[in-house]
Amino acid sequence: MDKIRIGIVGYGNLGRGVECAVRQNPDMEIAGIFTRRDPSVIRPLTEGVKVFPVSELDTGMDIDVLILCSGSATELPLQTPRYASMYNVIDSFDNHHDIPKHFANVDAAAKSSGHLAAISIGWDPGLFSLNRAVATLALPVGENYTFWGRGVSQGHSNAIRRIPGVLDARQYTVPVESAVEAVRSGSNPELTTRQKHTRECYVVAAEDADKEKIRETIVNMPDYFADYDTTVNFITQEELDRDHKGLPHGGSVIRSGKTGWDLENSEVVEFKLTLDSNPEFTSSVIVAYARAVARMAKEGCTGCMTIFDIPVAYALPMTGEEMRKNLL
Amino acid sequence: MDKIRIGIVGYGNLGRGVECAVRQNPDMEIAGIFTRRDPSVIRPLTEGVKVFPVSELDTGMDIDVLILCSGSATELPLQTPRYASMYNVIDSFDNHHDIPKHFANVDAAAKSSGHLAAISIGWDPGLFSLNRAVATLALPVGENYTFWGRGVSQGHSNAIRRIPGVLDARQYTVPVESAVEAVRSGSNPELTTRQKHTRECYVVAAEDADKEKIRETIVNMPDYFADYDTTVNFITQEELDRDHKGLPHGGSVIRSGKTGWDLENSEVVEFKLTLDSNPEFTSSVIVAYARAVARMAKEGCTGCMTIFDIPVAYALPMTGEEMRKNLL
Repeated sequence: MDKIRIGIVGYGNLGRGVECAVRQNPDMEIAGIFTRRDPSVIRPLTEGVKVFPVSELDTGMDIDVLILCSGSATELPLQTPRYASMYNVIDSFDNHHDIPKHFANVDAAAKSSGHLAAISIGWDPGLFSLNRAVATLALPVGENYTFWGRGVSQGHSNAIRRIPGVLDARQYTVPVESAVEAVRSGSNPELTTRQKHTRECYVVAAEDADKEKIRETIVNMPDYFADYDTTVNFITQEELDRDHKGLPHGGSVIRSGKTGWDLENSEVVEFKLTLDSNPEFTSSVIVAYARAVARMAKEGCTGCMTIFDIPVAYALPMTGEEMRKNLL
Repeated sequence: MDKIRIGIVGYGNLGRGVECAVRQNPDMEIAGIFTRRDPSVIRPLTEGVKVFPVSELDTGMDIDVLILCSGSATELPLQTPRYASMYNVIDSFDNHHDIPKHFANVDAAAKSSGHLAAISIGWDPGLFSLNRAVATLALPVGENYTFWGRGVSQGHSNAIRRIPGVLDARQYTVPVESAVEAVRSGSNPELTTRQKHTRECYVVAAEDADKEKIRETIVNMPDYFADYDTTVNFITQEELDRDHKGLPHGGSVIRSGKTGWDLENSEVVEFKLTLDSNPEFTSSVIVAYARAVARMAKEGCTGCMTIFDIPVAYALPMTGEEMRKNLL
């Protein structure tokens, strides 16, 4: 069997996570790492893997699936449709609010070029979405709740880093424990965004930066911070490197619903993640679904899909017989 | 839009659960309830729903999906292939050991008649299987653990009821709490079947029955009890009706795995159910996947599928746009 040839665009935390995940999937190999930086400064972990300038992708490389490991705020909205017109692609676009627009752009590009794309694959969006869907179909009468953390949100940390005067930043999303317990009890509480999570920011500012202005910019940032109680702590780069180096994360998707002729019974469904490394877990999920993209593209599927459209059988490195025997 | 016409075969706990679940899914209606009992003794909860002798199915009824609510031990192995040659069907066949054989029989019958079948849909097999698959694809290096209960296993209770001299029975599956905690900690313990669960049986025996023989038959029953520490308590029908009326259940699927270049990070995935009514939740899942069967059959799919092969999008009563907006 030919191995599935993976291209990695972007070699930050997510790109390195993809590289590690490919190592755990012997039916795959890395066709190349593509960067906007100087390729000579990048040292891949995998022996023999080549690093190319991203422009090399325009020459039509021999790649089965291109994994886009860039940021959701500004890069993926342009990159994913662009490369979907040349390759089968997958991304982890996580700006929930803009997903419908991103889907439409990627779908149009992929359909017109005859490629297959999967967007918003990871754990949220991704496995959390899948379990929101599963719980919703199982319990039509009920309520979904999602709690994140305690953990570092890379999207939110990046959003802070883009503010002028900010050198580095870590943002922790923290669930309000009393809210989680109320949901698990099946009481279906009404909770505002603010009642479910708080946000803690650790920021390294440039020496001449206006810290109060940075703080204001953070706490008022729409979508990312404006709806939360946010605390901003200014620390040194040394402190950040020492105390906030890891990227742990996790959380729970909980649906509490009713069954029975008169809705007399309560049922609670929970999906929970406890992650030492958010980017490594995210990229591990992406790599598995890249397998699904490669297989479904081979069967003639085109356009854009999400995790709702992809049978898990396509993402698993097993035959149907093995799945039914070992996992069903 | 035409409603999806559901036929219900068997009107026990599961059949009544299906009836309740259809009430929560306005795109569906019950075309008929089919029983091997005298139809006149069955009083459906839903106004206007007709009860037929099961033989009526041989006349070719106007049914989109037939939901088979019979037992896995002796009935479904015959019923599902038989009706898959006439209708699109779905069952909750839960004898894990015999799934490969059941799949092959149903697949052959459905393929040759041009129908679509889904087997082993519910929560285990079913949503637990889906989450075992999801956790396995996300963490190739890791270990899966499944814990059930504390709850009533209908399959095991039925197995006891089929023993001569037994009038009624309830079996509780009980997870060993120290084993669950060891798994959640990420320590990947090696656990035998016996170390993970115990089984508690409450049995009503006929007056003249040989209780010791019944006990022996239970604790030595292959697949169901032989590999567990099983306690058998003989009680009266009154006690059983008073103290063991409900059918609660639940449990956890947990996978603990490693990521990173040198497997330096731990990641734990858990899917947990806490159910007041096992049959109502099971049938609620079946009804949603009956929607998927109806839709996929309309698109020309034939043969036998499991939950691994069915995109959740087909089971959800939403458009793709609604899913991406509300659940992704």
